[in-house]
Amino acid sequence: MQLTFTQNLAFVSEAIFNGTVLLDANQAIQQEAISLGLFTANNVWMMLATALVFIMHLGFAGVEAGFGQAKNTVNILFKNTLTPIIGILTYFVVGFNLMYPGFEGGDTGIFGFAGFFLSLPENGTTIEYASGKYTYWTDFLFQAMFAATSATIVSGAVAERIKLSAYLIFTLIFVGIVYPIIGSWKWGYGWLDMRGFHDFAGSTLVHSVGGWAALAGVMVLGPRIGKYINGKVVDKPGSSVPLAVIGVFLLWLGWFGFNGGSVLSADPAVTSFVLVTTTLAACAGGIGGMIAALFMFKRLDLGMVLNGILAGLVGITAGADVIGPGYAILVGFIAGILVVFSVVLLDKLKLDDVVGAISVHLTCGVWGTLAVGLFSINPDHTLGTQFLGAAACGLTSFICAMAIFLGLKYTIGIRVSAQHEKDGMDSHEHGIRGYTITYDD
Amino acid sequence: MQLTFTQNLAFVSEAIFNGTVLLDANQAIQQEAISLGLFTANNVWMMLATALVFIMHLGFAGVEAGFGQAKNTVNILFKNTLTPIIGILTYFVVGFNLMYPGFEGGDTGIFGFAGFFLSLPENGTTIEYASGKYTYWTDFLFQAMFAATSATIVSGAVAERIKLSAYLIFTLIFVGIVYPIIGSWKWGYGWLDMRGFHDFAGSTLVHSVGGWAALAGVMVLGPRIGKYINGKVVDKPGSSVPLAVIGVFLLWLGWFGFNGGSVLSADPAVTSFVLVTTTLAACAGGIGGMIAALFMFKRLDLGMVLNGILAGLVGITAGADVIGPGYAILVGFIAGILVVFSVVLLDKLKLDDVVGAISVHLTCGVWGTLAVGLFSINPDHTLGTQFLGAAACGLTSFICAMAIFLGLKYTIGIRVSAQHEKDGMDSHEHGIRGYTITYDD
Amino acid sequence: MQLTFTQNLAFVSEAIFNGTVLLDANQAIQQEAISLGLFTANNVWMMLATALVFIMHLGFAGVEAGFGQAKNTVNILFKNTLTPIIGILTYFVVGFNLMYPGFEGGDTGIFGFAGFFLSLPENGTTIEYASGKYTYWTDFLFQAMFAATSATIVSGAVAERIKLSAYLIFTLIFVGIVYPIIGSWKWGYGWLDMRGFHDFAGSTLVHSVGGWAALAGVMVLGPRIGKYINGKVVDKPGSSVPLAVIGVFLLWLGWFGFNGGSVLSADPAVTSFVLVTTTLAACAGGIGGMIAALFMFKRLDLGMVLNGILAGLVGITAGADVIGPGYAILVGFIAGILVVFSVVLLDKLKLDDVVGAISVHLTCGVWGTLAVGLFSINPDHTLGTQFLGAAACGLTSFICAMAIFLGLKYTIGIRVSAQHEKDGMDSHEHGIRGYTITYDD
Repeated sequence: MQLTFTQNLAFVSEAIFNGTVLLDANQAIQQEAISLGLFTANNVWMMLATALVFIMHLGFAGVEAGFGQAKNTVNILFKNTLTPIIGILTYFVVGFNLMYPGFEGGDTGIFGFAGFFLSLPENGTTIEYASGKYTYWTDFLFQAMFAATSATIVSGAVAERIKLSAYLIFTLIFVGIVYPIIGSWKWGYGWLDMRGFHDFAGSTLVHSVGGWAALAGVMVLGPRIGKYINGKVVDKPGSSVPLAVIGVFLLWLGWFGFNGGSVLSADPAVTSFVLVTTTLAACAGGIGGMIAALFMFKRLDLGMVLNGILAGLVGITAGADVIGPGYAILVGFIAGILVVFSVVLLDKLKLDDVVGAISVHLTCGVWGTLAVGLFSINPDHTLGTQFLGAAACGLTSFICAMAIFLGLKYTIGIRVSAQHEKDGMDSHEHGIRGYTITYDD
Repeated sequence: MQLTFTQNLAFVSEAIFNGTVLLDANQAIQQEAISLGLFTANNVWMMLATALVFIMHLGFAGVEAGFGQAKNTVNILFKNTLTPIIGILTYFVVGFNLMYPGFEGGDTGIFGFAGFFLSLPENGTTIEYASGKYTYWTDFLFQAMFAATSATIVSGAVAERIKLSAYLIFTLIFVGIVYPIIGSWKWGYGWLDMRGFHDFAGSTLVHSVGGWAALAGVMVLGPRIGKYINGKVVDKPGSSVPLAVIGVFLLWLGWFGFNGGSVLSADPAVTSFVLVTTTLAACAGGIGGMIAALFMFKRLDLGMVLNGILAGLVGITAGADVIGPGYAILVGFIAGILVVFSVVLLDKLKLDDVVGAISVHLTCGVWGTLAVGLFSINPDHTLGTQFLGAAACGLTSFICAMAIFLGLKYTIGIRVSAQHEKDGMDSHEHGIRGYTITYDD
Repeated sequence: MQLTFTQNLAFVSEAIFNGTVLLDANQAIQQEAISLGLFTANNVWMMLATALVFIMHLGFAGVEAGFGQAKNTVNILFKNTLTPIIGILTYFVVGFNLMYPGFEGGDTGIFGFAGFFLSLPENGTTIEYASGKYTYWTDFLFQAMFAATSATIVSGAVAERIKLSAYLIFTLIFVGIVYPIIGSWKWGYGWLDMRGFHDFAGSTLVHSVGGWAALAGVMVLGPRIGKYINGKVVDKPGSSVPLAVIGVFLLWLGWFGFNGGSVLSADPAVTSFVLVTTTLAACAGGIGGMIAALFMFKRLDLGMVLNGILAGLVGITAGADVIGPGYAILVGFIAGILVVFSVVLLDKLKLDDVVGAISVHLTCGVWGTLAVGLFSINPDHTLGTQFLGAAACGLTSFICAMAIFLGLKYTIGIRVSAQHEKDGMDSHEHGIRGYTITYDD
């Protein structure tokens, strides 16, 4: 079918922006009985999405260790290795049943709890569970992989001066209690869900929630020694740019599972649509970051391209299922620009965020949530409700994180000694170096 | 079933080389109506193949940054990060509709265009699209991931002296226009497809097309300063061998999607057959590279094992679906040997290819295309047609790339200053170092 | 369903530890006829599990090159690149038909051989093969990826002083003959299978078999020069901790395919159950390693967290399908503790294992095998049979590996010269450095 440019635009607009074709396909699937083959295909997709979200933890580790100084590499990697471990175990003990206390059709309100550990329903592994979209085990594991990402966001911002013990305790409480309760407001059929708030895969529930907690941490901790001198920002070069690039590409790869898996089935129309919007937003974010940095810093700044990609991904996460490809590019591009200005602004405010986590996850998480109100194909999604959701979750996360960090500060202490910070934390806390590239014995 | 060695060979030959069992299975699938379960399983496979091809871009980044000098690491990574971004966005705007202008049964000839942006057919996300093998969105995204790989091939060859702006403009034009038009000749039902040319996953259409463009780039640019002195080749040690190994393994992994996804469905018989031939060829390529380098250089050359693996993968890509496992090993082994001789020959001709991209992708891409004529189980595949396809695509790619590079040379300039090249491009163009491994503040 | 803490525990115990729900789901699947959709979904899962096991080889490379000294990086990577290549090719020639000589229902005894190369059964690619769970090609490739892992385990232990030629010949014989024959005892319907030995994905057949061979290698080779001086253990710092972390995360990711694929279908209930137990054991192993190292060494030892994760994974591998989530955590936690004590013990015995491979794979492989006897939901699994299997396989592997290593020692020699060892093997055997991070030309 050969179309002129204008006809083509009109056609795309009809098909994509109104989403008619998309919705038809969904209905078709819902009407047909679930066969064992479909159940299995759905579950395979969800298990692989789980594996992809898992590898995001290596992505975060790469970004943080790559952008962090060599003298703190082991410390950063220690935090990033422990974060998914603590997150998953905590989720097994309480998180899952805090976040999903009830079932579809119920109203959790602001708090619910279905008991400690797992509570396998009788149809937990059969085709009846979740209408044949996945098993109970898959459900738990996919959500558990998600949970720890919100703490990992904090990890990057507070690096290079936080006490390891304080960070680990923070993670335990934040992932075990704060994240799942806020998450239940939307995904656990809580009060925000009842009001029509839309957050497809967590621009708010995961990213800005993590970003607000990171902001609280950075405020309580204060900047690294020597970061801001006489009103000037001092660069602290990261140990390995290739490591940061590996991290960003793995995060992008993992986002195929993060967003693709958030469809909560392998529905061909919706999953593939989501992958397209996700990818396009990431690309546009990289371009946005490159251009904004070129204007601001007069150089081709790889760090801002990388953060731009992540910004685009965070930005599209709330609406990847309801924003057309053209608007996805716009959302990502703006996110890429926002991240650069946000980094500059935070430095002006002497809020020292080692890897730009607050700019990527808070700033662009809020932007992505609001973008649903602007560009969604579903007219029920309004800017007002989106703002309400972003504000309520953000405020709660910030207050809770601030309370935890302040509590830690005035008990076990939250910051390493100035000497340890200057020497690097690896030699003091871990006794080894991150890199030993010498050729003598 | 216990067989003697001779019986076994005969049996394998009957079953595999005649491909009877393989073809029977295909027919069975085509005759059965597509269920929603099968549609979903097909689409899941294609989406994951897309993710695997995506990760090849990190693989290329690893190989190039690992084999490139430390003073250019950031520059190389900048190119490799921008390449998929530009590739995917360009493909969204024009590439996809240049490459697939018509539909099965039509004849595109040498050029067709279905309009700007995407043009979702009415059955684009339902089981009717592509006979239930994947959705329109999956179709676009899988092909978009492919497109950028051809430019990435060029990136490795021209590294360490090309101007970043010139490279980015080249990529925009090459991926946006040249690659999809050549690709349409076979995969878009164009004139080569009408003549029975077989290029399963792109030994020619992706790899040698990229390789010829790389050759043009290297010819226009000239060698790096100090690479050839008094007839001797001067080694320029790469920054990190582990990074190159990470790159090659990720490329190998990605090839499971590159070749496995090129089946364009999850057909169990064909996809799994393709993965076996692909893997065996990669292994044999590594052995071929090792042995050839042992003869040529008298040492166990890890670089040549790695390039041999890639050579084997490129070599089997044209015929992974029609060449039996035994012949796949032969094709890969020869590719591994060819890559070593090709590297030596190019150095003799003072064609300076930083990572051996021309040898891997051009030399072995042509070899793999011709190998279909020699070893295919399908008697319709002839050496003559395979040669015609390889020559037509190669010549076109070389001429177009030469024109673009020369155009750039005589306008914005294509090569950085001698001073920048000696100092390394990172400090001048990007303002940061690739590695900062010091333990003092 | 709101439950009290005690009720919840009882419910979990009923549902999970007796496994009733799990088994019901299995039966449902087996009773329904296999559709083409289900066949395809099964095969997609198995192919992707194959890809995940493949990436474990990069994981091993990362761990070994990261923990090994910079002067031997290229040598280590050479071994790790060649290992899967030799493993897969050998498996194609003889291994597969040694390991799976007969078919379900037969009794292989202690040795069987179905002929050289592959012997595609007539229904090899259709739904009849393996009851529609995967194709013959998938079967071969998944098992081939497994095979090479047992040799890779050896690689890490004997690094930094073994002659490359000796290692490659060892790998050829061990992967080609020893591993598949031992494997056939259980997975090829041999004598151990007849006695009810349970080793789901290879705590014994892959990991402890590899670990015993590593022990033999370390005993024959002796420790590295300068490792043990006056009764003190001298640290030899690894080249790159980030590389080791990348390796461990990729191994963890790959284990989703290693264990998840060992279900040998995409059965939703069993595959997702296995992923949950695998993940929980890995997390608990990391915690166990951290705590044990904190007691033993008084520091937060990242190396022991990483080895603890691997220990937990090895430990759960034998029983991932029959041990409930709670017990999986216990099995992993104990494995994480065991690995630390094992490392200390081996050093006391002057058994120099560069990366801790013997402690991870032998010690925790045996532990995991016995744990099935303690915690399995299937009452037919007994400690006695598990011990018999672990002992028989271990003893055979140790004797065979010892014979090969001694044979090599007294023929071509097994250890590089003291000078080469001190200088590092890269400059002598390979002529390049692993890292060249300088900014001067």
